[in-house]
Amino acid sequence: MRLAIDASQGVRGTTSPNPPVGAVVLDASGEIVGIGATNPVGGPHAEVVALAEAGERARGGTAVVTLEPCNHHGRTGPCAQALVDAGIAAVHYAVPDPHPMAAGGADTLRAAGVAVSVGPFTADVERGPLRAWLHRQRHGRPHVTWKFAATIDGRSAAADGTSQWITGPEARARVHADRARLDAIVVGTGTVIADDPWLTARLPDGSLASHQPLRVVVGTREIPSTAKILDDAAPTLVLRTHDIDEVLAALADQDDVLVEGGPRLAGAFLAAGRVDRIQAYLAPALLGAGSHAVEDAGVQTISEALRFRRESVETIGDDLLLNLIPEK
Amino acid sequence: MRLAIDASQGVRGTTSPNPPVGAVVLDASGEIVGIGATNPVGGPHAEVVALAEAGERARGGTAVVTLEPCNHHGRTGPCAQALVDAGIAAVHYAVPDPHPMAAGGADTLRAAGVAVSVGPFTADVERGPLRAWLHRQRHGRPHVTWKFAATIDGRSAAADGTSQWITGPEARARVHADRARLDAIVVGTGTVIADDPWLTARLPDGSLASHQPLRVVVGTREIPSTAKILDDAAPTLVLRTHDIDEVLAALADQDDVLVEGGPRLAGAFLAAGRVDRIQAYLAPALLGAGSHAVEDAGVQTISEALRFRRESVETIGDDLLLNLIPEK
Ligand SMILES: NC(=O)c1ccc[n+]([C@@H]2O[C@H](COP(=O)([O-])OP(=O)(O)OC[C@H]3O[C@@H](n4cnc5c(N)ncnc54)[C@H](OP(=O)(O)O)[C@@H]3O)[C@@H](O)[C@H]2O)c1
Ligand SMILES: NC(=O)c1ccc[n+]([C@@H]2O[C@H](COP(=O)([O-])OP(=O)(O)OC[C@H]3O[C@@H](n4cnc5c(N)ncnc54)[C@H](OP(=O)(O)O)[C@@H]3O)[C@@H](O)[C@H]2O)c1
Repeated sequence: MRLAIDASQGVRGTTSPNPPVGAVVLDASGEIVGIGATNPVGGPHAEVVALAEAGERARGGTAVVTLEPCNHHGRTGPCAQALVDAGIAAVHYAVPDPHPMAAGGADTLRAAGVAVSVGPFTADVERGPLRAWLHRQRHGRPHVTWKFAATIDGRSAAADGTSQWITGPEARARVHADRARLDAIVVGTGTVIADDPWLTARLPDGSLASHQPLRVVVGTREIPSTAKILDDAAPTLVLRTHDIDEVLAALADQDDVLVEGGPRLAGAFLAAGRVDRIQAYLAPALLGAGSHAVEDAGVQTISEALRFRRESVETIGDDLLLNLIPEK
Repeated sequence: MRLAIDASQGVRGTTSPNPPVGAVVLDASGEIVGIGATNPVGGPHAEVVALAEAGERARGGTAVVTLEPCNHHGRTGPCAQALVDAGIAAVHYAVPDPHPMAAGGADTLRAAGVAVSVGPFTADVERGPLRAWLHRQRHGRPHVTWKFAATIDGRSAAADGTSQWITGPEARARVHADRARLDAIVVGTGTVIADDPWLTARLPDGSLASHQPLRVVVGTREIPSTAKILDDAAPTLVLRTHDIDEVLAALADQDDVLVEGGPRLAGAFLAAGRVDRIQAYLAPALLGAGSHAVEDAGVQTISEALRFRRESVETIGDDLLLNLIPEK
């Protein structure tokens, strides 16, 4: 069963920024006879790849897959039927297929006499690389992470506006590694005008990563034509609006969106209930003055405080990384 | 050697708010033949108690003690000599005696042919209940902890001033349990005027703990004669000054002092370099407005940020407790 966890963590050898889905076929004696990985948005499905490798040895065997095998006649034909045709006796899947057109695979399998079970790694897969893709399938909008870096007194810059660096090198390296897996990075015009950030994913040696997220600027003010984010290192989208749902509509094709600030744009996403996860990098430092991580989140009194569930706490070098999920 | 850790954690049965020091005597075969506990500020020393219990069985044995045995002829006579007289062959101690008059015990033991070793639990004892007492012996002033509770965006109250409650019941219970071990709690006049806190240590049922810390208010403004801290639940000291070292001089007889805020008094302690530990209770919540955990810590630019070393991170219910120590 460890293979299901491995599949949830991504399958080695795939370089796609999109999350891989895995399938493992074991023969009747429990030996691995086929492994497949696929990207949920295209290519032959993981099950088809694994079954092809297994051939006749799949008969009477077991398939362990990340996602419920699909049921629809798309480019590749339904995987559920392929598993039945191969003579698979049991299927374990971690997460039900969230896609309305593809769902129903488990029913097809059961109707053909295949033993079907869900879990036990559902939570791992849902928090793993499939998180954003599943979110978009289920909610019809991208998954939004708001990331910020601040001191333990919630300051993102000192009194004179300086902010390099609040967190240490390990935390900054992590942020760059994460950027290389994102679909889009969103900032407000205020941040572009104040900081002129480049918003690219860089490798530890400073060079550009092979995948770059879309850069998105939100706000009505003109940004300088010399702004670094207007160069050709990555595509850039300028959205002259204050409406958060308009922003998300413009990003409807993206799964994994990061809001990097600044404080007022973050406050607007929070007030609109459009933050699905917070990544708070907290440095063991104090400033006692200066600008804030977030402004105007729509909270007037303590009973309206935005409350979150702690998904994880991690130490990264000298800093802490808190992953928080909204309490629904 | 586990006994040395137990001694550092306090010896069961002692109810003193002051930190106990422990001594264990083992006979030549390694069996425990005497246990003693004492309060560093009075009473027979732990070694004397443990040796009295051991009697003749101490001869050729080993003593494991929290503090370097004292060398001075005070009320009780030097413990180092008592160990020599009892025929102890080896002494392990965790922390050298910080008291100038008492130090030198290890030399006395060695001169008498006793094997002496330090550690290995030095760090545990120094961070344990002896922390504040050792600090005052070494630095001639109380150990100052600044405790605050805030959201992860560094707010200690919402826009309308409400702040009950930012942290959860588990964290609040911890704060009360800690208060019952403190010598003094310090706040600014601003906190007294705004919040009218009681600053007493309460048990989970709401009743007063048997030990109450001294309540201290700092600032030049008159506080209302009806202020809760002026009742007789505990003694209260009003210090009409802004000079932090004057405050500490007035508390020179105390080991363990807690600054509970508010933000400006905390900023003044930080700017003066008089915070020896920070206890930050961080709630997984956002306010985006409202008053700050700290104001005016004397920092203008990022290179002047006050930096700390992480001593520990703990989850308490939904909240995080960070213990931070200044980087010297
Ligand atoms: N440490 C960190 O994690 C971090 C990250 C980023 C930025 N920062 C700091 O943040 C500071 C900039 O602050 P900021 O608040 O001006 O930055 P911001 O939040 O990036 O930009 C604010 C602007 O966003 C636009 N906007 C779009 N939708 C909005 C909405 N619904 N509500 C309000 N505004 C909306 C508005 O632009 P228009 O006025 O043009 O319409 C507004 O002026 C800089 O000093 C920067 O260093 C820190
Ligand atoms: N969540 C928490 O952890 C927490 C804890 C405590 C308080 N609070 C909040 O803090 C708010 C009160 O803020 P505050 O800043 O007025 O409170 P404060 O820091 O308790 O009081 C400020 C006052 O302290 C006096 N003071 C003494 N020495 C000083 C120095 N060296 N520098 C500056 N001031 C000195 C001054 O009094 P004089 O003007 O009288 O001379 C000053 O006005 C309240 O809303 C309360 O709820 C939050």
